[in-house]
Amino acid sequence: MKTKQVKAYGTQSPEADLKELNIDRREVLASDVEIDILYCGVCHSDLHFARNDWGMTQYPVVPGHEIVGKVTKVGDAVSNHKVGDIVAVGCMVDSCRTCDSCKNDLEQYCPDWVGTYGGFDKHLETNTHGGYSETIVVDQDFVLTVPEHLDLAGVAPVLCAGITTWSPLRHWNVNKDSKVAVVGLGGLGHMALKLAHALGAHVTLFSRSTNKIEDAKALGAHDVIISTDDAQMEKAMGQFDLILDTVPYEHDFNPYISTLKTNGTLVVLGYLGPLDPPLVTVPMIMGRKSIAGSLIGGIAETQELLDFCGKHNITSDIEVVNIQDINTAYERMLKSDVKYRFVIDMKSLKN
Amino acid sequence: MKTKQVKAYGTQSPEADLKELNIDRREVLASDVEIDILYCGVCHSDLHFARNDWGMTQYPVVPGHEIVGKVTKVGDAVSNHKVGDIVAVGCMVDSCRTCDSCKNDLEQYCPDWVGTYGGFDKHLETNTHGGYSETIVVDQDFVLTVPEHLDLAGVAPVLCAGITTWSPLRHWNVNKDSKVAVVGLGGLGHMALKLAHALGAHVTLFSRSTNKIEDAKALGAHDVIISTDDAQMEKAMGQFDLILDTVPYEHDFNPYISTLKTNGTLVVLGYLGPLDPPLVTVPMIMGRKSIAGSLIGGIAETQELLDFCGKHNITSDIEVVNIQDINTAYERMLKSDVKYRFVIDMKSLKN
Repeated sequence: MKTKQVKAYGTQSPEADLKELNIDRREVLASDVEIDILYCGVCHSDLHFARNDWGMTQYPVVPGHEIVGKVTKVGDAVSNHKVGDIVAVGCMVDSCRTCDSCKNDLEQYCPDWVGTYGGFDKHLETNTHGGYSETIVVDQDFVLTVPEHLDLAGVAPVLCAGITTWSPLRHWNVNKDSKVAVVGLGGLGHMALKLAHALGAHVTLFSRSTNKIEDAKALGAHDVIISTDDAQMEKAMGQFDLILDTVPYEHDFNPYISTLKTNGTLVVLGYLGPLDPPLVTVPMIMGRKSIAGSLIGGIAETQELLDFCGKHNITSDIEVVNIQDINTAYERMLKSDVKYRFVIDMKSLKN
Repeated sequence: MKTKQVKAYGTQSPEADLKELNIDRREVLASDVEIDILYCGVCHSDLHFARNDWGMTQYPVVPGHEIVGKVTKVGDAVSNHKVGDIVAVGCMVDSCRTCDSCKNDLEQYCPDWVGTYGGFDKHLETNTHGGYSETIVVDQDFVLTVPEHLDLAGVAPVLCAGITTWSPLRHWNVNKDSKVAVVGLGGLGHMALKLAHALGAHVTLFSRSTNKIEDAKALGAHDVIISTDDAQMEKAMGQFDLILDTVPYEHDFNPYISTLKTNGTLVVLGYLGPLDPPLVTVPMIMGRKSIAGSLIGGIAETQELLDFCGKHNITSDIEVVNIQDINTAYERMLKSDVKYRFVIDMKSLKN
């Protein structure tokens, strides 16, 4: 297989800072699209993966799965993208195409989906490498069309933070009659506020402090409930159809379950681990309440979201950084010191 | 208010055996139905309530919320039942009639529903008393019609064990394309097998031992998975659309979550308490899986179930006992020594 060497940023070990390195990209196959990467969002997963926090990393790692770029070459069989188009790639670059999930536009639940980084590249027989790089080559079916009037740097986080919140909003049929709450105001949370608001829902942010009230309202929240205030939590009981919990660390989910209406659902988006303190079943039984998980979204659904963002002029609130600042950005991200997502301007890698 | 004294079986304290006592029933009001009780099922809740296991019991207690009887008198405004009809009363005898749940035929989620026993009787301004008694007087809207060709003793448990499993089967749209699993083979579990089978689903029982295989298959299970056999559990991964967990004691729900398909739901019906060991979120996130609670069913849904039972000739498998044997029956129930529900023949109280 013909390959091309390109510059990237990655790491060879959990302890090492990310630095410049070279990786191979394949020459386009018949159904491939080659993309010159313009922007790449910085997701918490990038950091976890680079540092092997989940114990599954193979090195070297080149993170990045919030990719926006321009098409530079297409294979002979590519019909839906052409040179010069602005396109995007999210968390997946392939899937089995044959399982029930794939057939139902739920590629994210295909047991064999291929991650944009850290997956298995069947062509190069190596790890896939993500968007902290000059270019990427992706099968056309996993390349999305970007509404070109949008701020392209702000589009990048839509590919992960955006779709992760959009998918449950759509799956649980959020509309103008819905009361939606969001727990946590980070990369995911701020997109959840914008998207739920744009869907016409009544939107509430749960926050531990009063500091975020003003920002939350500017982002689309109609209300903010201070979750450490017992009186406010008591008043919120039985209010919500859907709660999107974006908090990535251990916390008590029970108080939020109590704020669900009968038939309401709390969706866990950010926390990977055991529910400790344990979930108590009585409030769930007494109101047919559910707790569910949800993972990014399918390709068709991601395109739907990009189109929706185009129509409603929605992008992420971001801070643009150079690739040389990625290690500092990671440290700031760990302290939630970003409103609300870092996006790398990939020009900085090419100079 | 005019009342009538009738014989009942109940207890004055958590420690005391149930014994005969007298209670007051109101004379029928305009919308009331007076019922001569023929049979009353024995639910685990009866025992928990009599013994104040949930810390909310007010004494004296007369348990029983699986009631089948014959109409002996109706009020002037009663239109849907007449003297001589065979009718049933389940877990509720009233609700607020005005909240969203009541308006949506979900009276069981009305915050003010009145339990058949242990609720507040607004007419007599005392506790409501259940079906371990000669007669009961109930508002017509909470009185159900029984298909009279059915075995009436076997109908009694349909009013609680039956509807508790029927409601989630219907809410989660179980049909001939569904794969349903049931955890636990007791009063609820055996009804779940029968009902899911009659709905056309492929039905599996999870059981800890091989002893129950034959019975489960006779009740409608197509398969039995031994939950203590790691190889069988491994093979069951990703198989089920819906799991009804009827087990009333603490256990690990995580292995069952793993056997759900993408978008699958596990419904907790029997266990009231904290989920310990804690639920782990990753398998839920990786397949948009849910865990939910569910409580009995609404009045319209209970009538639907009785009609379905009539059509499919479904009743509970029961052991009929005299009211004088209720304390022995409780002890046997605690040891799961019943296939699958005790039903009291109320003639024994009247002699």
